[in-house]
Amino acid sequence: MVKITFMGAGSTVFSKNVLGDSMLSPAMHDCEIALYDIDGDRLDESFTMLQAINKNCNQGRATIRKYLGVPNRREALKGADFVVNAIQVGGYDPCTITDFEVPKKYGLRQTIADTLGIGGIFRALRTIPVMLDFAADMEAVCPNAWFLNYTNPMAMLTGAMLRATKVKTVGLCHSVQSCAEGLMHGVDMDYDDKVQWKIAGINHMGWLLEITRDGVDLYPEIKRRSREQGAPEWDKVRHEIMHTFGYYVTESSEHNAEYMPYFIKSKYPELIERYNIPLDEYPRRCVNQIEGWKRMRESLVNNPNLEHTRSHEYASYIMEAIVTNKPYKIGGNVLNHGLITNLPEKACVEVPCLVDASGVTPCFVGDLPEQLASLNRSNINVQLLTIEAALTLKKECIYYAAMMDPHTAAELSIDDIKAMCDDLIEAHGDWLPKYK
Amino acid sequence: MVKITFMGAGSTVFSKNVLGDSMLSPAMHDCEIALYDIDGDRLDESFTMLQAINKNCNQGRATIRKYLGVPNRREALKGADFVVNAIQVGGYDPCTITDFEVPKKYGLRQTIADTLGIGGIFRALRTIPVMLDFAADMEAVCPNAWFLNYTNPMAMLTGAMLRATKVKTVGLCHSVQSCAEGLMHGVDMDYDDKVQWKIAGINHMGWLLEITRDGVDLYPEIKRRSREQGAPEWDKVRHEIMHTFGYYVTESSEHNAEYMPYFIKSKYPELIERYNIPLDEYPRRCVNQIEGWKRMRESLVNNPNLEHTRSHEYASYIMEAIVTNKPYKIGGNVLNHGLITNLPEKACVEVPCLVDASGVTPCFVGDLPEQLASLNRSNINVQLLTIEAALTLKKECIYYAAMMDPHTAAELSIDDIKAMCDDLIEAHGDWLPKYK
Amino acid sequence: MVKITFMGAGSTVFSKNVLGDSMLSPAMHDCEIALYDIDGDRLDESFTMLQAINKNCNQGRATIRKYLGVPNRREALKGADFVVNAIQVGGYDPCTITDFEVPKKYGLRQTIADTLGIGGIFRALRTIPVMLDFAADMEAVCPNAWFLNYTNPMAMLTGAMLRATKVKTVGLCHSVQSCAEGLMHGVDMDYDDKVQWKIAGINHMGWLLEITRDGVDLYPEIKRRSREQGAPEWDKVRHEIMHTFGYYVTESSEHNAEYMPYFIKSKYPELIERYNIPLDEYPRRCVNQIEGWKRMRESLVNNPNLEHTRSHEYASYIMEAIVTNKPYKIGGNVLNHGLITNLPEKACVEVPCLVDASGVTPCFVGDLPEQLASLNRSNINVQLLTIEAALTLKKECIYYAAMMDPHTAAELSIDDIKAMCDDLIEAHGDWLPKYK
Amino acid sequence: MVKITFMGAGSTVFSKNVLGDSMLSPAMHDCEIALYDIDGDRLDESFTMLQAINKNCNQGRATIRKYLGVPNRREALKGADFVVNAIQVGGYDPCTITDFEVPKKYGLRQTIADTLGIGGIFRALRTIPVMLDFAADMEAVCPNAWFLNYTNPMAMLTGAMLRATKVKTVGLCHSVQSCAEGLMHGVDMDYDDKVQWKIAGINHMGWLLEITRDGVDLYPEIKRRSREQGAPEWDKVRHEIMHTFGYYVTESSEHNAEYMPYFIKSKYPELIERYNIPLDEYPRRCVNQIEGWKRMRESLVNNPNLEHTRSHEYASYIMEAIVTNKPYKIGGNVLNHGLITNLPEKACVEVPCLVDASGVTPCFVGDLPEQLASLNRSNINVQLLTIEAALTLKKECIYYAAMMDPHTAAELSIDDIKAMCDDLIEAHGDWLPKYK
Repeated sequence: MVKITFMGAGSTVFSKNVLGDSMLSPAMHDCEIALYDIDGDRLDESFTMLQAINKNCNQGRATIRKYLGVPNRREALKGADFVVNAIQVGGYDPCTITDFEVPKKYGLRQTIADTLGIGGIFRALRTIPVMLDFAADMEAVCPNAWFLNYTNPMAMLTGAMLRATKVKTVGLCHSVQSCAEGLMHGVDMDYDDKVQWKIAGINHMGWLLEITRDGVDLYPEIKRRSREQGAPEWDKVRHEIMHTFGYYVTESSEHNAEYMPYFIKSKYPELIERYNIPLDEYPRRCVNQIEGWKRMRESLVNNPNLEHTRSHEYASYIMEAIVTNKPYKIGGNVLNHGLITNLPEKACVEVPCLVDASGVTPCFVGDLPEQLASLNRSNINVQLLTIEAALTLKKECIYYAAMMDPHTAAELSIDDIKAMCDDLIEAHGDWLPKYK
Repeated sequence: MVKITFMGAGSTVFSKNVLGDSMLSPAMHDCEIALYDIDGDRLDESFTMLQAINKNCNQGRATIRKYLGVPNRREALKGADFVVNAIQVGGYDPCTITDFEVPKKYGLRQTIADTLGIGGIFRALRTIPVMLDFAADMEAVCPNAWFLNYTNPMAMLTGAMLRATKVKTVGLCHSVQSCAEGLMHGVDMDYDDKVQWKIAGINHMGWLLEITRDGVDLYPEIKRRSREQGAPEWDKVRHEIMHTFGYYVTESSEHNAEYMPYFIKSKYPELIERYNIPLDEYPRRCVNQIEGWKRMRESLVNNPNLEHTRSHEYASYIMEAIVTNKPYKIGGNVLNHGLITNLPEKACVEVPCLVDASGVTPCFVGDLPEQLASLNRSNINVQLLTIEAALTLKKECIYYAAMMDPHTAAELSIDDIKAMCDDLIEAHGDWLPKYK
Repeated sequence: MVKITFMGAGSTVFSKNVLGDSMLSPAMHDCEIALYDIDGDRLDESFTMLQAINKNCNQGRATIRKYLGVPNRREALKGADFVVNAIQVGGYDPCTITDFEVPKKYGLRQTIADTLGIGGIFRALRTIPVMLDFAADMEAVCPNAWFLNYTNPMAMLTGAMLRATKVKTVGLCHSVQSCAEGLMHGVDMDYDDKVQWKIAGINHMGWLLEITRDGVDLYPEIKRRSREQGAPEWDKVRHEIMHTFGYYVTESSEHNAEYMPYFIKSKYPELIERYNIPLDEYPRRCVNQIEGWKRMRESLVNNPNLEHTRSHEYASYIMEAIVTNKPYKIGGNVLNHGLITNLPEKACVEVPCLVDASGVTPCFVGDLPEQLASLNRSNINVQLLTIEAALTLKKECIYYAAMMDPHTAAELSIDDIKAMCDDLIEAHGDWLPKYK
Repeated sequence: MVKITFMGAGSTVFSKNVLGDSMLSPAMHDCEIALYDIDGDRLDESFTMLQAINKNCNQGRATIRKYLGVPNRREALKGADFVVNAIQVGGYDPCTITDFEVPKKYGLRQTIADTLGIGGIFRALRTIPVMLDFAADMEAVCPNAWFLNYTNPMAMLTGAMLRATKVKTVGLCHSVQSCAEGLMHGVDMDYDDKVQWKIAGINHMGWLLEITRDGVDLYPEIKRRSREQGAPEWDKVRHEIMHTFGYYVTESSEHNAEYMPYFIKSKYPELIERYNIPLDEYPRRCVNQIEGWKRMRESLVNNPNLEHTRSHEYASYIMEAIVTNKPYKIGGNVLNHGLITNLPEKACVEVPCLVDASGVTPCFVGDLPEQLASLNRSNINVQLLTIEAALTLKKECIYYAAMMDPHTAAELSIDDIKAMCDDLIEAHGDWLPKYK
């Protein structure tokens, strides 16, 4: 009998997808589900909702338990086969607000701030210690479990787990599987399973290296349409990247706008409109989500007739492949030990992986085109230094990380970068461990 | 429409399996099949047989053509999507006879002689030039085709293709998929798809690194049974290897007896009986096969009602996975660019591979247990030097290869090894290119 | 008898040092010196000067010949043991002027522009083709000669030679041997041969990883003095780098100001004065040098009593070590095949090298501190893409290179970068090959 | 003031050379010398002898102290700059006798048994624990000291130190510096400092990859002479290796006879005479040495007028280069992290190293010719498995190591190898830790 522990189970919609999917998988009908969160209300809501799904769609075959707070965490993890991680440390208020407001004082504008840049760095710094605590528990009570990480910043968190713990970790992101389809739909081309594509790089900056149908390269037609009819409104940054660097990138335009130094430039204010860059997008989404949740709660939590149909989320397919030994292919985030040969060995890369009873096994990629490797390296610099900061608690490593961020370095001086880091450390208070 | 070219199509039984399977795959019902051989009679027989299968089992949807001899080879390959290689250069008579009789004069006894040792070396030396000719044709007329090599010696031939040509090559061997099942049946244990196993190493010396059911290691029970009830009669060498080095090996006992210096030893004649080692096994099989073919021909070639049911042979599943983009897992032979981290980079290794529309992508393995890596390296030495001999035509590289063979080096002196190589070169006559 | 060919022999002062030194080395008293240039007047001047030195200081034992222009180049190189490269392609007028004036139109300010950034890129693009011509000659007429490259941009030119030719090349720069001494003098500390230091990284951004005396780390005292008494006026950028990133860097402050995005920032105009950054420094030096040469010519060229004492220039010591088989240590620029383990394999790195009769052999370094590797990688990105541009003649690779330059990317938009590249290509005219 | 600690100071002749040399080096006139041994008589003899040298040749400037036995070991090491290791664990009687007599019962004949083979394996197994104890002391009381290891088996001991401790270790052997000269003298050719040579591989199986004078390859003439006038009586094995594999090897013929499976073969008894192989050579030398020591003691120990002139031993030159920061080149044994690219990463390799105040820095070598790499790998297999045995105390790793030895595997069966290992473990008694 499979045991799945869900960290951050108060993420009601996401836990519905992953755990609803799992209960619908024949291999996991009778699974044991452990819900863990530190927010009692949200935990109760998810518990109620999943009980309904179990009853309505799974003949009640699964066993669902809830575990509230750190003292019950180890019990939640005990004997787990899979641990799904979807936590958020510090929440919208206060931490996301801090991530945006402090940099804004220095004139540094962001869109999402959950992956790279100053926001991504601090999100990692407050999340890694929590995950290392999870890891210590897992090494003790479920050393063979697979840890499926969904929390951002993906490369920093997954990299920290893989370098500092023995937990079998893979990082998962929706941006890989939807990339090719999204690109083609954006230029009014049909997509189906026969379209072959190959993606590799780093999380949120994975490269669509190949896209073909029946052996024919689709890029020329895609680029022709993009040039002639223009990029979709919501995707101007990525189309610019495709035309300028030759390849499309996995994560959305609003994200990539802040991963490179070319789009949000104080000296070129007109670019914001031209590339349709939604500054401060993430806090806006948080507010909307909080509002939306009030409306959605009724239909999910207090709906005794709630049904679930299996989604396209990777997680249940991965667990199913491991349980049933039927091969499944994913784009996973793993340590780069010679997989992408022109990225640093210590980087956390996103590559095709084979999943079956032997676990998640990454595939060899080789060299990326050098311009793509260059862009990846410019982000990996920040990731490696942030992980070093979190593992050593040396304050200067935070400065290093921030100074290597292409957008931050383009916009601010050394003095301002250091001052901004100091402000952020202070604003975080106890959300961060003490730095030396 | 998929085009499959079969090199050595006169291998009637094998071409029936691979091409019969292909016609039964929905994705390849309407494939074009090009049969190539240099033996007109055998080519005709395979052609007749496959026409019957196409008619009886495939509503005649496939198109089958035959191409006789080198002048028609390029036409056979033209536009191919897949090239299946199952040639044998030099045949039983004269070359296999030579491979056994000349070494025997020096007191060097062999069992199969198709993989390593002096027989394997010369089989490679006469086969590689033919395959490089195939490669030159393929680079010209079907540069994107996948070359599925089934011919032995696998590591030497596949390695030569991958290092000296641009042809997309993978080497395939039955020994991987049947390994775990065979081991368990040999000690009277049940096997099914839920048994998880992981195999990596080199062809014919791949290691069963893991074998579990429901997360439980099955090796202790397997070893206990083997010790208590004894190894199966036909598998005493491999069980000895398992007890001595800790892990079971993919290829059969009669093969492995000649890959290591421990079994066929002039100083310990009693080991032949103790380990039940069938000396001169391969020539005996050849004679039987030639006899058997006379009886079988009637039922296969001259049988207008011939049917075919899909076999477990990898080839059609690989082609199907590439055509349909549904992932499939194989053990494939590929260049080791950091896949098995304690084997040489230039070696041809056998590792798990993911197959889909992106082709055959090898997976990362990491370090083998050092004693297994050591045994592999002792064989890789011979493989690398044989490839170097074939690519440079330097006679001393043949000596080097023979001298690094553990069995040959254990049994013979330097003078005898060199003299034996010279004799073999002379006996081969025009079956070998001229060496310097 | 050793033959030394000097490419760009019209560099009178530099050829005096290298070749005067060589004649003064006992191992090379009777060397043959081949002077090559395309400027007849400058070539004559160097020839006259070196004849005088040979007569006055070397008893006329060396043989000196001059070779003017491309048709005589191969003869100059024939049979050479050493080829010293000190060419400049395009000169101050027109090419250096172009390198500064065109970017200035886009608001991009530079200091030296010979290493990285838009100036370094175009300097490489016009120089690499000439060097590949040299290499073709060398492969034909002196395949065993060592090529000692002094021309900038060092990493791009040396990297191109090492990747695209078979010529044994090492790149040499003065900045390594003078780094530790300069740093200590700048803070009023004594320096002598007992000070141990270790430098590795890339050219012009090599890192002073260790500086000790009698096993005691000198960095704390150096940093204390720098903080208390302030950085020297001429070295404020490097001291800032040392305080911010922990380590001192080899090349001067005026150079490093444009290798990173922190110093020349349109949004922070005050930094120019604060860090004492000499914008447009290189053209100014060129003008002064041209002026100075008029005065110096008299004393060097038309001075029949000219003497020479051996300088600290590396070149003659390297040649001497190779000729005499006495070990000598240098900082050399070589391909990074696992020397600095967290920089890309294809990068040209500057590492300690052992020189003796076996040639120039690079030493293993290992990982750099990650923040230093990050800074190096941000420059290596540009170098690798510039080399790719020069070797493939693909115009988009020029854009890629320019867009990866930290300073350029910080200051300009994608559109402006591309337009600036186009302008520079056009302004170069026939100084560049045709790009696709 | 430099402190040199000598482990195994009772090796009177060797300590005279190393420490006499050191006192004669101007940089170390006033050194502090700590003599450590567990044999009080031998320690006293060395102490008396070195006092005389200090007085007679060094004006008494050095300070010499003696430390007897384990309780005084840490004091001996305290604050050391250099630790020279020349211990022998178990001595001639009983351990060397055991190493030869037990294998002989199984028909396994040896010559030296201090490097590889069954004798080398057990010598390592009893020595590594002692050296790990040294390392623990050094990490505590002289963490920055360099450990210069002279004890055999070199690759196994040095490899164990480098992999299991933090001590800065380099392994040193006389066979490198005397190799080229010995080869040339053996065929009546003159040798001087102008002969260029390059050696790399593993200890005792380092390869003379290049030997030239004035750029001319000397191998053809050397081989011609060897063929025409025959190999020297004392060097027939190495000349056979040179003719058969193309390159000369560093360690002597009597050593290499047991590193490969070609020379001591029960099936070819005539080879012993033909190659002039001195079976049981090492015990004979030990007996002679013990005899000789009785005679020599008088002249060394009880000679108040004893003088010393500087020898060619590496050790004092290495210490001098580190102290004075003047570069020196050695062949050193170090971990292979990509230095010899076709040998395993974990192997301990012998490569050119640069020595100066920055310590011992290994140089990059690249690929060896594949036949040489193959021979090295056949020995590295044993080394890696022996180290694994010593570090894990798993008995099966001892079997693995013995079974991978080319000579042992050629001569004995699996059963005999295991039985011989068991006998040796028992015969060693408390000289070995308890194996599981």
